[in-house]
Amino acid sequence: MSTKDVMIWRSNRAGTHYVADTVVVEEPVEIRIRFRDSNDKWGERPLSITMRTPGDDQALAVGFMFTEGMLLENQLDKVTIGLENTVTVHFKPDVRPELEKLQRNFYATSSCGVCGKSSLDSLGYTYENLQWAENLPSLSTELIASLPQKLTEYQSLFDETGGIHAAGLFDWEGNLMLSAEDVGRHNAVDKIAGKALINQSLPFNQHILVLSGRACFELLHKALALNIPVVVAVGAPSSLAIETAERFGQTLIGFARDGRFNVYSGPERLELQNETRAII
Amino acid sequence: MSTKDVMIWRSNRAGTHYVADTVVVEEPVEIRIRFRDSNDKWGERPLSITMRTPGDDQALAVGFMFTEGMLLENQLDKVTIGLENTVTVHFKPDVRPELEKLQRNFYATSSCGVCGKSSLDSLGYTYENLQWAENLPSLSTELIASLPQKLTEYQSLFDETGGIHAAGLFDWEGNLMLSAEDVGRHNAVDKIAGKALINQSLPFNQHILVLSGRACFELLHKALALNIPVVVAVGAPSSLAIETAERFGQTLIGFARDGRFNVYSGPERLELQNETRAII
Repeated sequence: MSTKDVMIWRSNRAGTHYVADTVVVEEPVEIRIRFRDSNDKWGERPLSITMRTPGDDQALAVGFMFTEGMLLENQLDKVTIGLENTVTVHFKPDVRPELEKLQRNFYATSSCGVCGKSSLDSLGYTYENLQWAENLPSLSTELIASLPQKLTEYQSLFDETGGIHAAGLFDWEGNLMLSAEDVGRHNAVDKIAGKALINQSLPFNQHILVLSGRACFELLHKALALNIPVVVAVGAPSSLAIETAERFGQTLIGFARDGRFNVYSGPERLELQNETRAII
Repeated sequence: MSTKDVMIWRSNRAGTHYVADTVVVEEPVEIRIRFRDSNDKWGERPLSITMRTPGDDQALAVGFMFTEGMLLENQLDKVTIGLENTVTVHFKPDVRPELEKLQRNFYATSSCGVCGKSSLDSLGYTYENLQWAENLPSLSTELIASLPQKLTEYQSLFDETGGIHAAGLFDWEGNLMLSAEDVGRHNAVDKIAGKALINQSLPFNQHILVLSGRACFELLHKALALNIPVVVAVGAPSSLAIETAERFGQTLIGFARDGRFNVYSGPERLELQNETRAII
């Protein structure tokens, strides 16, 4: 259940009325891992608890581990749902996950948080596997401008509750390939990543990621982990999101709504019409 | 610097123009702690790295530790700014912080994340120090409806960048007492908490917290840690935010904008006019 019916007091100029309403569900899920240890014994342990909107839990678990570097594409055996909001990611028998890496201390969070990284530098966000597709045709402004509306059309929950983030993965022609929704914006992207891993539909190097909200560092980081060359956000980008996109050659577009958008980095992938390099 | 000037390509129906724009700054900060250990030796160690918008860093560090239960009101000696985005919270000499509690593993995050809690139950969100003020006059619908606009008037950054969350603490007459802004919505509340601790202006048991965005569990949790009886969000609440507010007797209001609002829990603190208990 992604939404829940509640009774509320709705107050406006016509007075206050006790009415039915619908809200987005937020619930904790425990992500567990199952793997063979160095003594060849199978073990299982909890990895993470996160708040999320129920639905696509298997994809969330797999995608979270993949975008955070804890699971490689060829290491996934299967993912199973347990009792009471638990989901278990099974490593293949021949994989010995680096438990220290998994067990590293996670520190603080913010809404755009880099959670658990003892420092940005120590993490060394190098994205060594990043390989941009070459010779892709330029994206037209019409195509870019059309994407947020296409995401909204597929976004079943937002209109009902107003409280959910959506992410959509589009191909280079602007067709929606995958979408996900969650109370947490990072989760929506992780769910897309997980669906791709489970369906073996990676890489995404000829794709566009569209976000219903703002673009902060963590989302650009996840898009880079997925090798996605173009990120389009309906909301504002942060300074670090822009710097990250610039540094790794990614195209970052923000405030994409009502037929308008701003390009913050990587304009070379776009066919910008009537371009004027205005002197400010 | 809370904002940064960038050059962007702005595309709309009139074409594309290369223009100056302003974005909100997102940067990591390291929170460190200084304390006397069990051998009476002074030590210092990193506690947390979080993304934030620079400004009020001391308040952020103190408020984060307080709302997450790592620092009590009477344990703070001082807080100092170090080099390169580091801030150090100094415990009083007679305090021996429970390092195990501070060092507990932080797990995953979401935009509404419960970061680092190995399970909700194990945390035991009991809020034993919660004590609601009694005999407060009922809040009028006009006062509630006026709060988001008042926050906006004081919100210097939002209009400029569109990428920042604000939180405002109001007294029972609707006067703004404290406000803070950040790219992370939790940080804005933590900055308010920290300002209060540093200025010794707690408790907030006759106050109203207004949030520029959505209300998820983590924000209600922080408001409960601050003993704030009424939370007003401009955006949607999540199911767990509502359940948490109901469970602990807090008033939760959402979608407060344009003179309208929805009451999700605790209507007894409000003077709801022309109330009609409609049969749905």
